[in-house]
Amino acid sequence: MDKVTVRSPATLSNLGSGFDVFGLALREPYDVVEAKRIPERGVIIEGIEGWGADSITSDPAKNSAGAAAQAVLERAGSEHGVAIRIKKGIRPCSGIGSSGSSAAGGACAANMVLDKPLRSEELVLCAAKAEQVTSGSFHADNVGPAVLGGFTVIRAYEPFEIHRMDPPANLGVVVTMPDLMVNTREARKVLPSKVDLKDMIFEVGNASSLVLGMCRGDVELVGRSMADRVIEPARAKLNPHLKEAEAAAMDAGAAGAFLGGSGPCVIAVYDRKRIEGEGIAEAVRKVYEEHGLKSDNWVTTWGEGCRRV
Amino acid sequence: MDKVTVRSPATLSNLGSGFDVFGLALREPYDVVEAKRIPERGVIIEGIEGWGADSITSDPAKNSAGAAAQAVLERAGSEHGVAIRIKKGIRPCSGIGSSGSSAAGGACAANMVLDKPLRSEELVLCAAKAEQVTSGSFHADNVGPAVLGGFTVIRAYEPFEIHRMDPPANLGVVVTMPDLMVNTREARKVLPSKVDLKDMIFEVGNASSLVLGMCRGDVELVGRSMADRVIEPARAKLNPHLKEAEAAAMDAGAAGAFLGGSGPCVIAVYDRKRIEGEGIAEAVRKVYEEHGLKSDNWVTTWGEGCRRV
Repeated sequence: MDKVTVRSPATLSNLGSGFDVFGLALREPYDVVEAKRIPERGVIIEGIEGWGADSITSDPAKNSAGAAAQAVLERAGSEHGVAIRIKKGIRPCSGIGSSGSSAAGGACAANMVLDKPLRSEELVLCAAKAEQVTSGSFHADNVGPAVLGGFTVIRAYEPFEIHRMDPPANLGVVVTMPDLMVNTREARKVLPSKVDLKDMIFEVGNASSLVLGMCRGDVELVGRSMADRVIEPARAKLNPHLKEAEAAAMDAGAAGAFLGGSGPCVIAVYDRKRIEGEGIAEAVRKVYEEHGLKSDNWVTTWGEGCRRV
Repeated sequence: MDKVTVRSPATLSNLGSGFDVFGLALREPYDVVEAKRIPERGVIIEGIEGWGADSITSDPAKNSAGAAAQAVLERAGSEHGVAIRIKKGIRPCSGIGSSGSSAAGGACAANMVLDKPLRSEELVLCAAKAEQVTSGSFHADNVGPAVLGGFTVIRAYEPFEIHRMDPPANLGVVVTMPDLMVNTREARKVLPSKVDLKDMIFEVGNASSLVLGMCRGDVELVGRSMADRVIEPARAKLNPHLKEAEAAAMDAGAAGAFLGGSGPCVIAVYDRKRIEGEGIAEAVRKVYEEHGLKSDNWVTTWGEGCRRV
């Protein structure tokens, strides 16, 4: 194949209790990445459009999709290169894996024009390298689900081990993006370096129960198990009105609510068999509106990983 | 019913990555607890025999089975009392939930002679109260599986929420009890009060994967996910030859190995479809023998909770 276009989903990381461990691919929004095989080695960025296009570098070594594509070419020992076009459907710095989506898209699209494609797990690692370039830390909790789809659990980084499963079909997700900007690097700095043992036990108990809820198809258990005493409290100060937005989601029938990545997106999950997500979206939107902030939202569910359009 | 006899299993807590969260009921060894309905209110301990009988108090307020039975009578508002007999099949201070087994047995046996029995989750709480009396801390990671059987996950303590599931049928367990004594209260004191954030992430990643392995029936994943960088390293100094014993179990084909509770029991899990457990038992026994220590062992699997004999 000489040219492919892939759709790469937004993703949720953390899910409350699973910081740097859990990830979930969303059905929408998504980035679209096109890769074209070119005779010269290396990566060229031919075009960037959509959300935040002006602020995204076209230097292939620093661009998420470009750096991921480059990592794929190197790992595969490719003799040729790729030219890439990116259409951002996900706002950068939103907390729903915008850079991870572009990285996964770049890795998967470049992989599809290779003569001998890499395995999915290798693509996750290549995309994680790009995350390191753009965010300053090697992490795979967004690129994991963006490549593999569904719900992902990273057991360990050395050696790297990731597991993927289908979440329950009735898992609904409401994403609300207020008109606020949070810098991911800053959001990492506010995290504590040490955690109380009792808080670790709390996180382990909830994360374990969240996996059990996913396995059992128990959306209420999944939602309840998003409780987090370590990460979100530290980041709350960077995200005004967060607690109020979460409380509004819960009052509107959500099973759980949490901060998407480092914010500012607020995420609510709900049981699609029981309620409609629009009521939750409306309740959260209203909170921001009362504070004079606009917001966008998506009423969606979990989705597959990178796919050809 | 005026008189019942129940078998209450030994249990594993922690399972490496799930400190204070995970529990697993074993098929053997077990304690046997008899409860007889008596007209006077309160609890009488009529007899204690078996492992460590001489060192176990017959004061019903301080005895594990007695305190748990008392908690059940109070919670149920019972007009009558119970007389209890205990046969210890599990050595006290062994790290496989000896006091928890007696507590669960006392709670379940007393419950069976009530006119209006309590629910299982209530029995777990009553038995956990007894654990507080005997060990100094309110914890349910042993009494949970001793009452409910199988694999248990405590999501949270306030309010208390515990989940139970059947582990894979091919989950084999080798318990090796070296002739060493570890005091549970001391073993709690050596734990760190603070944990590095990166270690918390490691524990959450492993505990989450362990649950996934249980759900999928993947014993190798369960074993690999018993990795723990927080609790066991702190307790290793109280348990001589632990690392050597674990390494011997792994070399003999175990999927995972960890310290039972606060020790001194060393636990190995293995895939019963793939290998026999006797080779693991022999390898671990040999390690202690080389250091001049005798050991007992059980080659067993997971089991049910308290049951009438």
